[in-house]
Amino acid sequence: MKTILYPEKNIWNSLCKRPSMDNKDIEVVIREIIESVRSDKDKAVFHYSAKFDGASPENLKVSHTEIEEATGQVSEKLKSAINVARSNIEKFHSAQLLAEPVIETSFGVKCWRKNVAIEKVGLYVPGGSAPLFSTVLMLGIPAKLAGCKKIIICTPPGKDGKVSPLILYTAHLIGITEIYKVGGAQAIAAMAFGTESIPKVYKIFGPGNQYVTKAKELIQQSGISIDMPAGPSEVLVIADGTANAEFIAADLLSQAEHGPDSQVVMLTDNQELISEVKAGLEKQLQQLPRKEIATKALENTMLILLPSLDDCISFSNEYAPEHLIINVSDSGILAKKVINAGSVFVGGFSCESAGDYASGTNHTLPTNGYARSYSGVSTESFLKKISFQEMNRDGVINLGPVIEIMAEAESLYGHRNAMSIRLKSLQND
Amino acid sequence: MKTILYPEKNIWNSLCKRPSMDNKDIEVVIREIIESVRSDKDKAVFHYSAKFDGASPENLKVSHTEIEEATGQVSEKLKSAINVARSNIEKFHSAQLLAEPVIETSFGVKCWRKNVAIEKVGLYVPGGSAPLFSTVLMLGIPAKLAGCKKIIICTPPGKDGKVSPLILYTAHLIGITEIYKVGGAQAIAAMAFGTESIPKVYKIFGPGNQYVTKAKELIQQSGISIDMPAGPSEVLVIADGTANAEFIAADLLSQAEHGPDSQVVMLTDNQELISEVKAGLEKQLQQLPRKEIATKALENTMLILLPSLDDCISFSNEYAPEHLIINVSDSGILAKKVINAGSVFVGGFSCESAGDYASGTNHTLPTNGYARSYSGVSTESFLKKISFQEMNRDGVINLGPVIEIMAEAESLYGHRNAMSIRLKSLQND
Repeated sequence: MKTILYPEKNIWNSLCKRPSMDNKDIEVVIREIIESVRSDKDKAVFHYSAKFDGASPENLKVSHTEIEEATGQVSEKLKSAINVARSNIEKFHSAQLLAEPVIETSFGVKCWRKNVAIEKVGLYVPGGSAPLFSTVLMLGIPAKLAGCKKIIICTPPGKDGKVSPLILYTAHLIGITEIYKVGGAQAIAAMAFGTESIPKVYKIFGPGNQYVTKAKELIQQSGISIDMPAGPSEVLVIADGTANAEFIAADLLSQAEHGPDSQVVMLTDNQELISEVKAGLEKQLQQLPRKEIATKALENTMLILLPSLDDCISFSNEYAPEHLIINVSDSGILAKKVINAGSVFVGGFSCESAGDYASGTNHTLPTNGYARSYSGVSTESFLKKISFQEMNRDGVINLGPVIEIMAEAESLYGHRNAMSIRLKSLQND
Repeated sequence: MKTILYPEKNIWNSLCKRPSMDNKDIEVVIREIIESVRSDKDKAVFHYSAKFDGASPENLKVSHTEIEEATGQVSEKLKSAINVARSNIEKFHSAQLLAEPVIETSFGVKCWRKNVAIEKVGLYVPGGSAPLFSTVLMLGIPAKLAGCKKIIICTPPGKDGKVSPLILYTAHLIGITEIYKVGGAQAIAAMAFGTESIPKVYKIFGPGNQYVTKAKELIQQSGISIDMPAGPSEVLVIADGTANAEFIAADLLSQAEHGPDSQVVMLTDNQELISEVKAGLEKQLQQLPRKEIATKALENTMLILLPSLDDCISFSNEYAPEHLIINVSDSGILAKKVINAGSVFVGGFSCESAGDYASGTNHTLPTNGYARSYSGVSTESFLKKISFQEMNRDGVINLGPVIEIMAEAESLYGHRNAMSIRLKSLQND
């Protein structure tokens, strides 16, 4: 843990730097996996699943029976919690489907845009140490709301060849039943190019380890789009003397337990708070099952003292955190000054885990400073907006000469002629 | 030109394939340029400008004097045409700034999203044979409407070290005065990493040749975002027996003149129309200054006869054209069936060049089938949407237990604790 007191502005930039992820060495391996899946399809998928995941599922596709069985394996208490989360996520993501008006830009010229779902999408749900069924909600619900026709999930099976019933139950609940037992780069390649069992999709979503991330980066070069580039998860907390230090310690730890590379930062204008938070961290850390991971992440944690809360928000805007918790006496005012962040938690009662699961916002967010130019996943991520224009005779008469002059100035006489020929046809009428 | 009569559905897929752009051979060169600009900055920029563009401008930045002089070099007729286009583009792109409502997802839990401009953006405007001042309008206007603080333009100078007055005039008109005389991959690298003269930006927009395109693809790996991947420009026309064959020929040629690799397709349910369009093409081609380019593009042009207009729209949806012109007796009905396209021109009077310049829609659109998952450039392309949530005591009491149960089911006890500690604080109240 590093405590940094009043850093000069000219070193903010270096404090905002994330550890560089030099994964060029894995690029060769991942390219090989992609090419292999592209040409050998299912055969390659089975090969890499056995090699990397030690899994040899009989079929890649999860059967109806497996999905039905899952329902019985989830407790009623958890089912009803998932239902609350689902309802909140649905409410918030439905509100993102706004229809734009038709605009008559010139007399006789109408323009509009239409939301159209991406037909085929693939959702990657990591397996590993814990079954991330919340990711199924966060990706599946907006995909359904957008109206995507084909929604498939790829998720790695355990060594027993099975997928967690929690993932199957949640997927089924929101209406997704096409689930494939495959993880890693081979899953991304399979969705990008299609195999005998797994259909090709147009856009791939979801978090994953460095192999999944690299595979997503590389398949973009073949025209398949992805939700966003990824890096280790992050939280930045801005707090003042009114904040509860135990809350802050808990928030920092909830990020630290994600992985040893988690980025955890606190900014404050109150030096005493730093000592209190440190004490809270030490105490709470002892009770965490993922203590080892969190301890490692805390090594790089920065607790930074700055002259004012305005400096804190300026630093945060330079850092562009994935998650920003604002825990000060008037959090609402500071929240209005946010320029770069993925998702913002306003006030002492708004903890990050609320957004991770159930407040309604999406938890798939830009990390690694990408929040400067990327938004988190939303219903819009599953849509294209197609533009339309319709000109009638008045439109041609009105706008025709403008287009002729501009096309000529760009020396594009074919462009001009497409307009001239229509103008002439009207003069002959 | 290929006339294809009633192709079987199982070969549609191969007809929809674009020529593969295997530009792996240029990747090494472009990587070298990027690395060189990243380390040697301005020095490298000057070096490559001299090497590739034969240009040695004194300063990289266009001076105020140069911008002022440009105003006198543009005819009044063209100025007023540009003003009409500007007004239409502004009207249509302002309508895209919709505010979403605040949603109370559960009692005591409010969620919302806010449009926030990307602070620093770079617009690439190609030079070459014609000064594409229309690109300045199409990228600059939405950047201004979004509220981007720093908007810079890079555009290659001629061998005389000067930039076209048309580009300077248009940029100044819409309020952009930070213009740099640099093109090619070196311009993209300069905007991605910054040099002594050229500031670093967070997102880069604009069309360009294969070097520019490859550079944009590669700098993405360093976390700089781009508008969209690019390929050769395309038009697909759907027409029936009521369409004016001369209009169609003019539309096909306006695309063909872009470059020898332009993709030009016509679909119809009327065999006679194919002969008429062919005759029109031969006649009109003779009058085009860019005849040579268009002739080359026409070699790959496909005129396809299909059984019905519904087949035509199905084929078009599979092709996912950048520009789609619907020229049939009831174009509005067919337009409703569009699933994949960049921009749609509805009815016989709506030519593509209208959208290229002045109807109000954007002309920066997804090519190469990317319209299956990408939208064209819009005001939103210059924004991020940041999500916010605010929970009060009621929210914690209401949603707290849900979050505890879900976090526990994912074995994330730090996440659970961040909620539990808040719940407990309220019980002690």
